[in-house]
Amino acid sequence: MPSIDVCLSPEMLHLYDLSGKVAVVVDVLRATSSMVTAFAHGIQKIIPVSSLADCLALREADFLTAAERDGRQAEGFDLGNSPFSYMTSDIKGKTLIMTTTNGTHAIKLSVAADVVLTGAFLNVGKVAEFVQATGKDVVVVCAGWKGNFNLEDTLFAGALAERLGTAFKPANDATLAAQHLYRLAQNDMLTFLSASSHVQRLKNLNIVRDVAFCLQEDVYEVVPVLKGDYLVSLESIAVS
Amino acid sequence: MPSIDVCLSPEMLHLYDLSGKVAVVVDVLRATSSMVTAFAHGIQKIIPVSSLADCLALREADFLTAAERDGRQAEGFDLGNSPFSYMTSDIKGKTLIMTTTNGTHAIKLSVAADVVLTGAFLNVGKVAEFVQATGKDVVVVCAGWKGNFNLEDTLFAGALAERLGTAFKPANDATLAAQHLYRLAQNDMLTFLSASSHVQRLKNLNIVRDVAFCLQEDVYEVVPVLKGDYLVSLESIAVS
Repeated sequence: MPSIDVCLSPEMLHLYDLSGKVAVVVDVLRATSSMVTAFAHGIQKIIPVSSLADCLALREADFLTAAERDGRQAEGFDLGNSPFSYMTSDIKGKTLIMTTTNGTHAIKLSVAADVVLTGAFLNVGKVAEFVQATGKDVVVVCAGWKGNFNLEDTLFAGALAERLGTAFKPANDATLAAQHLYRLAQNDMLTFLSASSHVQRLKNLNIVRDVAFCLQEDVYEVVPVLKGDYLVSLESIAVS
Repeated sequence: MPSIDVCLSPEMLHLYDLSGKVAVVVDVLRATSSMVTAFAHGIQKIIPVSSLADCLALREADFLTAAERDGRQAEGFDLGNSPFSYMTSDIKGKTLIMTTTNGTHAIKLSVAADVVLTGAFLNVGKVAEFVQATGKDVVVVCAGWKGNFNLEDTLFAGALAERLGTAFKPANDATLAAQHLYRLAQNDMLTFLSASSHVQRLKNLNIVRDVAFCLQEDVYEVVPVLKGDYLVSLESIAVS
């Protein structure tokens, strides 16, 4: 039986052997939620990079750039980290170079996996379907906050474990904890998370609307997947 | 208001600034539970060391040695990691050199704190009393399992946060998660933990009795505290 393992922070990722497995990288607030939203609105490629400098260095004439640091859009870039900014036909067919405080770095750290997906509540059902179809072990890589544990990414891991159900065995205690927490939170995640550090941080930045949006399940049916050094939508791999 | 922070794995401890704070190191199954039991039965000093070699090198004529690796007593040492083996008057007034898979290492990593205590469910009430009396910020350092998250140490962190109550502010999401999990588990921790990886491991070693004992709250009133490179009982510091 395949297993589902959860890595609660990138700081622990070196303890995990990702080879032969599917890595699902999650940064609910807001990197992977924004990526899912962007693919749902027709973006063609997202190049995740770790630094602002790389983001600028890789820019080409018709590329879009997105950069977030400490919850705010960095100056000199086209876009920030709000999913609402990706809900536009202007991004259709475009390539986006993106760097965020936690999420893009977690993607770069996960390349040892056979397949690297990005997950969010917005596409959790489709991620579960894809993982089930592969039959491989899965490791959820929580982006966390600057190396620390966070609640919202852990809740996503619990949600994915619940969707995978009894066909996937919890590989460790982190999976069990994530499932317990998700079951507690699922009926009202916004209230459950209201005391959490990142939601407090985002409240201070007046982006509660983003949080509420990112906590919705199954809004989109796209699954961003890493192909070399950029993300594409899973369907575009299937047909290419 | 002082805060309570939880470090879910020693792999994340470098992200924490321990200076000026109280560190409470916990390895419920079973290093810190055994330490608390040993002090309650009159041991005078425990020298925590990271390696089996150090344990042997520091041995003197009337010292006891304890070594555990992967849940079993290591060969050539006087004692293992079962609290029951410390319930004897033979240890009274003795010095014990101890190494375990996770717990003793976590103590060594925490020396930057102003005060380093070892906690367990067995002495959680007394640990809370002491922490309250200091008025300092506290960081619970979960020993985990070989760097990974584990449930039982996280539950202890939640129990301590509950005991400290509203006089201590949760410093981060890990504290909130630990409290949620503890509230779910507290009425029957043994059942809650029955699927956890370490309890499974100990079941295979036939030490379920140890687990049940280690999950009892407030059995002992001793608080082991680090003084230089060894642990003593808090009372012996107060009177010395």
